Amino acid sequence: MGRWEPDAAGRLRDAAMALYAEQGYDGTTVAEIADRAGVTARTFFRHFTDKREVLFAGSEDLERRMVDALSAAPRAAGPMDAIAVGLLSAAELFADRRDYSRRRQAVIAATPELRGREFIKMASLVAAFTEALRLRGVEPAVASLAAETGVAVFRVAFERWIAGPDDADLADVMRGTLAALSGLTA
Amino acid sequence: MGRWEPDAAGRLRDAAMALYAEQGYDGTTVAEIADRAGVTARTFFRHFTDKREVLFAGSEDLERRMVDALSAAPRAAGPMDAIAVGLLSAAELFADRRDYSRRRQAVIAATPELRGREFIKMASLVAAFTEALRLRGVEPAVASLAAETGVAVFRVAFERWIAGPDDADLADVMRGTLAALSGLTA
Repeated sequence: MGRWEPDAAGRLRDAAMALYAEQGYDGTTVAEIADRAGVTARTFFRHFTDKREVLFAGSEDLERRMVDALSAAPRAAGPMDAIAVGLLSAAELFADRRDYSRRRQAVIAATPELRGREFIKMASLVAAFTEALRLRGVEPAVASLAAETGVAVFRVAFERWIAGPDDADLADVMRGTLAALSGLTA
Repeated sequence: MGRWEPDAAGRLRDAAMALYAEQGYDGTTVAEIADRAGVTARTFFRHFTDKREVLFAGSEDLERRMVDALSAAPRAAGPMDAIAVGLLSAAELFADRRDYSRRRQAVIAATPELRGREFIKMASLVAAFTEALRLRGVEPAVASLAAETGVAVFRVAFERWIAGPDDADLADVMRGTLAALSGLTA
């Protein structure tokens, strides 16, 4: 990032989100996003491969962070407890991004191409959790069930968090959702 | 279906699956599928809207069947027990389709466009289960958690069933997966 473009990535992200909300994702071009952010298209492409990735940049980092936390859970922790450690490690990243997350989710829900991309991100997270659990010695069938269930909890908790009151805490909502799951399947 | 084309839909489905496995989904045309099945392209389009829907025809029926079964579960059944009734109602439909299901899954896994379509099918099932549970008086947050978890169980059980021994029974695998979930989250 050049010294004359402080936080160009952040401004591009905000500009993209505003334009997607105003005129739809499909009707927005990279040139318009760059223009709104006050940078050139060339600068856009230094930060993002295309207008879709504006909404998904950072998801590999998020996945890696959750998997690392899961892997670092105490040896004695069972599969769902290790998953919980992984999920909770993500919560603080979102602490000051609730409004952004809510707007992002609305754009994704309205755009089939983006829903597909979001599903693939979730499937990647399931695969990564499954692999991390297997490396902890969890048998394959249990690992994939725990991973699928953990990602379901993540999704439900995230939806509840962005729909909830402004002071809701994502970690609390995740813990509540994990407890609800435990009650449901008892 | 014309009287001169007994089970044209079934033959088209088999032809499509064979061609997708041989030369890939992207490299296969409707004309080739029709040709392999011994019918015209016009007949193809009487049965399927496009080559993608050959693999997804019937999924609305499957969803409706599961939702109807869930809705007809005894009033006293809790959310996960009602979900279990829904899932198990699907098992017999697949009883003699394991080989087909396994080949279908391989084609889908290899083709991003089809993975996207499959994800959307699963999301539709989650939404339908959620709605059916809400109609039973289950509160929204619990309904969506139970629905997401139920579809996760369906997916894991289905994968285990198609990867398992030839005489595996899908209903048994589903029951085992539900029991494993209960153990995991206890």
